[in-house]
Amino acid sequence: MLGAIEAGGTKFVCAVGQKDGRLVERIQINTDIPERTIPEVIAFFREFPIQAIGIASFGPIDINKESPTYGYIKSTPKPGWINFPFVQTMENAFHVPIHFITDVDGAALGEWAYGAAKGHNSCLYITVGTGIGAGAVVDGKLLRGLSHPEMGHISVRRHPEDSYEGFCPYHRDCIEGLAAGPAIEGRWGVKADMLHHEKAWEMEAYYLAEALVQYILILSPEKIIMGGGVMKQKHLFPRIHSLVKEKLEGFVPLPDKLVHYIVPPQLGDDAGVTGALLMAKQILEKKKAYEKQK
Amino acid sequence: MLGAIEAGGTKFVCAVGQKDGRLVERIQINTDIPERTIPEVIAFFREFPIQAIGIASFGPIDINKESPTYGYIKSTPKPGWINFPFVQTMENAFHVPIHFITDVDGAALGEWAYGAAKGHNSCLYITVGTGIGAGAVVDGKLLRGLSHPEMGHISVRRHPEDSYEGFCPYHRDCIEGLAAGPAIEGRWGVKADMLHHEKAWEMEAYYLAEALVQYILILSPEKIIMGGGVMKQKHLFPRIHSLVKEKLEGFVPLPDKLVHYIVPPQLGDDAGVTGALLMAKQILEKKKAYEKQK
Ligand SMILES: Nc1ncnc2c1ncn2[C@@H]1O[C@H](COP(=O)(O)OP(=O)(O)O)[C@@H](O)[C@H]1O
Ligand SMILES: Nc1ncnc2c1ncn2[C@@H]1O[C@H](COP(=O)(O)OP(=O)(O)O)[C@@H](O)[C@H]1O
Ligand SMILES: [Zn+2]
Ligand SMILES: [Zn+2]
Repeated sequence: MLGAIEAGGTKFVCAVGQKDGRLVERIQINTDIPERTIPEVIAFFREFPIQAIGIASFGPIDINKESPTYGYIKSTPKPGWINFPFVQTMENAFHVPIHFITDVDGAALGEWAYGAAKGHNSCLYITVGTGIGAGAVVDGKLLRGLSHPEMGHISVRRHPEDSYEGFCPYHRDCIEGLAAGPAIEGRWGVKADMLHHEKAWEMEAYYLAEALVQYILILSPEKIIMGGGVMKQKHLFPRIHSLVKEKLEGFVPLPDKLVHYIVPPQLGDDAGVTGALLMAKQILEKKKAYEKQK
Repeated sequence: MLGAIEAGGTKFVCAVGQKDGRLVERIQINTDIPERTIPEVIAFFREFPIQAIGIASFGPIDINKESPTYGYIKSTPKPGWINFPFVQTMENAFHVPIHFITDVDGAALGEWAYGAAKGHNSCLYITVGTGIGAGAVVDGKLLRGLSHPEMGHISVRRHPEDSYEGFCPYHRDCIEGLAAGPAIEGRWGVKADMLHHEKAWEMEAYYLAEALVQYILILSPEKIIMGGGVMKQKHLFPRIHSLVKEKLEGFVPLPDKLVHYIVPPQLGDDAGVTGALLMAKQILEKKKAYEKQK
């Protein structure tokens, strides 16, 4: 049996499941300080004979195995979680192999395997929420290189009527700094879910389309999935479709109907934990192959 | 035996070689109109018992097998080559499987297999010449999705002192429109190889670094190789290194020494044709696997 965790800023989803990706049992736990949340997580998994755990976590996280802080949640505004050694904590509790990925990588993998990108070779999952982040699947595997991508921090051309300075602590006006939930609130002085100003949503769609165009030109994904709190504003989808079409039509071989290309998630709250389960499977197989070799 | 072509705007490199990527014999042919160039290409390959051909071509080219213009060079200022059915022409002459990729994809693959990115999992090859283009290898394979990437046409933030309008016929001031050879000439009124104006090269490095930062945030390649006519200005490398470092240090886990991360090509004129040879090998293997299955 395999264990999977999607660790989010507001809640943890924990699940156990089989190698085919089916979730057998799942629970949700509010994200409190680690001292309260983690014991609940551990208690849940104690009930099952788990052989490996996949963790898809909020971050930024350190996934570089050579780094002294591998397996840590690094900087985060969430109280208590800065420098939390997530992998080490779970290893100490269960002594099984652990695979550590970002929350968006988990969602990308889950949606690719069982959701909106099923049957495709590649996909991009983007969340537009408290921050902006993205994970990519290429040829059925998470895109990796030096590290995982940091697509939420690309720069974009400013909307000509926008004078908001941006809120990203690193770059100020990268795409996250200009278009995540807090940017909407900072610019218009109203919480994003209460905002009904046409100009505001036009500008939001402009920025998201700008970012998508960069992602498409560089990665050329077969499917783009957009989730996160801000994307609950469903009217953003048609706006984004027409802007992306305008910018790329005739230049990049886009699918005829962008409504089938840039889409909402299908797995909802289970995308991340499903991806985490697949990563648990992968690391267990690696361990078995390694042991066989010896 | 395998055939390989790197079709460039000024010259064709044709070679035959073995499955290990070694070139056994090679020639160069000036790029004239197809009626003069192609017969020379065909005559060269006639001397060898070739079983497959890889073509890495200037473009834009159509690599979408479902498209009615698959295998064509599409729009190009080169006289005679617009809508040239490259794959079909070679198929008619040799009746062997043909693999058709972009020139930069060929170079990326060649440098990954035998050149500057040897031993790495991924790399990005960028040419800065008459245009800007890039090819990426991810997990030992060319990055593909909807199509090949079009990284030369991403948008970048303008240098605050730049008022040049850009020359890209599609986007005017995308990175190609602002930083390829003709942009340098258009902005400063001097051919790029004769230009000794400090401010000009500072601006060029600024734009190239802006583009690299986007590529790194989205793709996270393990190695970046920069070639093409403009990169013969070797002083661009240290300028780019320090700008990229400034923009990403502490945020992305860059290698310590960018001088080993962002590098010139190692295979010179043979990168593209070497990549093409590897693609010839791949398509031959595919054909054999397919025939076995039947
Ligand atoms: N219905 C909504 N419409 C617009 N914005 C919303 C909506 N619901 C949540 N948001 C915004 O999304 C952000 C939270 O994103 P969410 O994806 O829910 O969480 P997180 O990114 O922390 O995981 C907040 O900035 C909030 O204002
Ligand atoms: N030594 C040099 N210094 C700066 N620019 C150069 C140099 N040599 C060529 N270029 C510029 O590079 C462009 C040609 O690029 P090149 O890579 O040689 O060919 P192509 O892109 O057509 O395959 C021209 O715009 C030219 O001005
Ligand atoms: Zn940022
Ligand atoms: Zn362009």
